[in-house]
Parts: sequence; structure tokens; C-alpha cells
Amino acid sequence: VTGRQVGVVGLGLIGASLAGALRACGDTVRGFDVDESARRVALERGLVDRAGDDLEAAVAGADLVVLAVPVLTIVRLLPNVDRLAPDRAVIMDVGSVKRPVIQAMEALGSAPRAIGGHPIAGKSVSGPQAADRELFRDRTFALVPTSRTDARTAAYAESVVRDLGARPLLMDAGEHDRIVARTSHLPQLMSTALALSIAPEDGELAGPGLVDMTRLAASPPSMWVDILASNAENIVSALATCLGHLESLGQMAASGDGPGLERAMSTAGTMAAHLGRSETA
Amino acid sequence: VTGRQVGVVGLGLIGASLAGALRACGDTVRGFDVDESARRVALERGLVDRAGDDLEAAVAGADLVVLAVPVLTIVRLLPNVDRLAPDRAVIMDVGSVKRPVIQAMEALGSAPRAIGGHPIAGKSVSGPQAADRELFRDRTFALVPTSRTDARTAAYAESVVRDLGARPLLMDAGEHDRIVARTSHLPQLMSTALALSIAPEDGELAGPGLVDMTRLAASPPSMWVDILASNAENIVSALATCLGHLESLGQMAASGDGPGLERAMSTAGTMAAHLGRSETA
Repeated sequence: VTGRQVGVVGLGLIGASLAGALRACGDTVRGFDVDESARRVALERGLVDRAGDDLEAAVAGADLVVLAVPVLTIVRLLPNVDRLAPDRAVIMDVGSVKRPVIQAMEALGSAPRAIGGHPIAGKSVSGPQAADRELFRDRTFALVPTSRTDARTAAYAESVVRDLGARPLLMDAGEHDRIVARTSHLPQLMSTALALSIAPEDGELAGPGLVDMTRLAASPPSMWVDILASNAENIVSALATCLGHLESLGQMAASGDGPGLERAMSTAGTMAAHLGRSETA
Repeated sequence: VTGRQVGVVGLGLIGASLAGALRACGDTVRGFDVDESARRVALERGLVDRAGDDLEAAVAGADLVVLAVPVLTIVRLLPNVDRLAPDRAVIMDVGSVKRPVIQAMEALGSAPRAIGGHPIAGKSVSGPQAADRELFRDRTFALVPTSRTDARTAAYAESVVRDLGARPLLMDAGEHDRIVARTSHLPQLMSTALALSIAPEDGELAGPGLVDMTRLAASPPSMWVDILASNAENIVSALATCLGHLESLGQMAASGDGPGLERAMSTAGTMAAHLGRSETA
């Protein structure tokens, strides 16, 4: 089902990639961004048909509106989108935390046509200049219905996700937010803490492992502040688990407990190999 | 100065890569490994001229002996290499921790011709099947003289490092071990702890960031047990610093301290960008 009229609110890496992918499918895409240079890049790269800073123009006539701005901005814009979009429009977001978005969606007049989304995809560079129509190819795309989402909307969102080349995965907001606290938000904090632990003079002995481990720390802080604020409880719980493992590894190193270290590293290695395979699958 | 007779003790990723790189320079390389399949792979891939499980045969007639086995095995084998190698031979290692190796080298009869080494290079896969003659190209290669290393030996080791395509960096063992605790051993523990914090059902929401962050955790545990045991004091200190940052980030997330989080992430991002640049330089 292409030939949709799509409004994409936010032309960062994810929004512009999604716009470009849908446009390549035959959809007509209007982009919204408050940043003039983001609009210009998205237009120049052919990722959108039109771009502007007027929310009403972006969502007018839309069959589908996708919100691709930071989580708290999604929550703030939802009532406006609800008011401005046509009655038929499906409203979806791509934020990294789902509970606050789902709560806000449930309060909308258009709640039956609203559904949460979260593509498990990303890059270490941001903005529409880094956008890639293939960003979602073979990636999981979590779809999180609200208690009021109707079946037609869920099916519509699934078809959009498939058009992006991604694999839809229906899940509950609470489960989603608990899992991404471990798989995404915890790694972000670990990468940040590691980068903060490195001294400026250490750079000459930085190998590829350290570069891999600190890459996430270079992500835009503004996006992350929203994520951390919106999922603090789950993040604190994931962090506590991880701190426990770190302390235990430190104690084993300090006491020279070789067998304990080897056991822990073997268990971790099995999980790491499993994750590495899921990535390339 | 090529055309050297080189004995390489240990045909894992680093030893076999180094053997292949020196052989490509015109050196004649004899490899030693207790593992028959490692010897066979190194021979089949043309990384060594000969390979065997007799240490005496590997170091007999050598101008240069390189020990590329786990740190505690280096310490254990050094007296044998000292006894078996010709009087002219330079003895070098490539272990990831330098203080115990340097102490063992200082006790040798051949101490003036012994020098510690550590190439800042690696891969997430191990063994001679993953060896790469270009592994050291444009990488830092730390050279750590003992208190008894003579100037001729240091110059010889520098020329070997340049033949590998690497950048020699002379440093003190204590300084080396403090820095790699932060740049290598801490990231390894962080990656391990993160992998231990992931639940089996989380895999579907694993993105590229998590895969990057857990790649180190799949490294061979046996090598790491030696490293952690040999550098425990520095590692515990680096870990304490990092735990402090993690706890502080967790508190800021829990209390909704957006400006604090944004400041910490900006500082971390600057360091991460610096490390990323040093990598590609």
C-alpha cells in the first residue's frame, strides 16, 4: 500500500531516513523541522518532497503522520498533530521510550488511529546529512499499540514497517521500556562513563576496542536527556544490575580469582556472540 | 635491517600477524606453539617458514625472539628463552601488561638485550586464522625498556616496530600499565559486565550500539585472566573512577537533572570524538 501522503515531523537521522525510504516506495512526503539547515539538506538529498516549519502544512492531507523528534517533544506535539491532521490519518512515532508516548496517545481524540513505534536502528552520526534509506532494512521495528489502538491501525503500521524493509515486532510499552533500558540506555551510560574515565594523555594507547566502546558517547546529548528522563526507573534498575557485575569482576581481579573471572567472561562471551549473530542475521 | 632470523613464541592472532609481517619484510621466521592446529594454520597461510613445538628449535640461531603468549606464560618462559637463544639475540614480548614482564626480564642474563613491547592493535576474533600482516600498520607500538636494556637493543626494537608499519612509543612500565588499565582493561570489564546484564529475550531489541559495546566481551577469557591478574591494582583503581561516573549518571537520571546529564554527556562526547579521530588518524 504505497502512494501514501506522509507527514514526517522532525528531519534528524531517523526522520529523514524514514522519509527517504517511504518516498523511494512511492509515497509523497512532507517534512517538518524547525531547523532550516535540516530542511535544506533533506530537500537537497531528495529525502522529502517538501519541507517547512509549519506543522499544519506538514500534516494537512496526510494519511500517515510520523513523529521523529525527541521523546518529550513527541509528547508535547501530539495534541497539535491530533488537532491538525485529517480524521483518517494514522499517527505514529519513532521515539526510544514508549510509556510516556503511549499515555499521551491514549488521551487523544484520534487514539484509535495512534500507535507507538521504535526502529532498532541508528548510527554514530546524526542529522539528515547522515540519513540512509536503507537504515531500517532487516532491523527490528517495535510497534507498541495503545489500549485504544484499533486493529486496522496496527495492520496499517505493520505494512509501513514492512515497506521500510524492517521486521515489525508488536509489544507492550512497559516491556519495551524495560528491555531498551538494558539494550540501549544502559550501553549509552556505560559508554559515557567510560569516556569520562579516560585521561587526555591516554589517547596514544587507545585501540580499536576503546573506540568501539566510546562511540555511543558521541551521540547528541539533547536527545539522550529526554530518553534518560523518560525511562529513569528502568535505567536505574538496569544500572544497578550492571554495577553489581562490575563490582564482582573488580573483586575477582583484586583477589586473583582466575576461575571466577574465566566463568564470568565465558558466560558474557556466549551472550556477546549471540548478540553479534543477531546483528548480522 | 631485514633478513633477520626470528623466533616467534606463540602463534595466536598477534604472534602470527607479527610473524607474517616480518616474513613479508624478508625475515626468516620460526614459529613455536603447543597447539598443532595453530602451527598448521600459520604454516598453510605462509605466516611462518617453519613451525614446531620445540622451544629450542624455535629460538636456536635467532637474532630476535618475540614472546606472544599470555602474560604469565611470558614470565614463565623467559628464563628458558634466555638459556636457549644465542648470546646476540634480542628478546622482546608483546604482552598487554608490562610490569611483571619487565621484572622477569631484569633478572635474566640477557637483560641488556631484553625489551618489553605492546602493540595497540587487535581484533574481535582470535587465532592465526584471523592473523593479518597489516594488523600493526599505523598503530602505536609501546616499547618498554627495562632498567638494564642497552641503547642498541632499544634501537633494534624500534626498527622492528617500524618494519611492522607501526609507530614506536617508548614508555615506562608503570605508566604503560596505568594507562592500559583505563584504555583496554576497563573497557574489557565494562563490555563483560554489560553482556552479563542483558537478558536472553533482549536480543530482538539489540541494535548496532549494543553489538559494538559487547564485542570485546567475546574475547578469549584465558588471555584476559592473565591480564586482569597481572594488573589488578591499576584495574581496580580505573574501575573505581568509572563506577563513580556511572553512579553519578544514574543519580542524575533518577533525579531528572537534565542540565547535569547534558554537561556530562558533552564532556564524554568530546573525549569520544577525540578517540575516534586518533583511531582513524
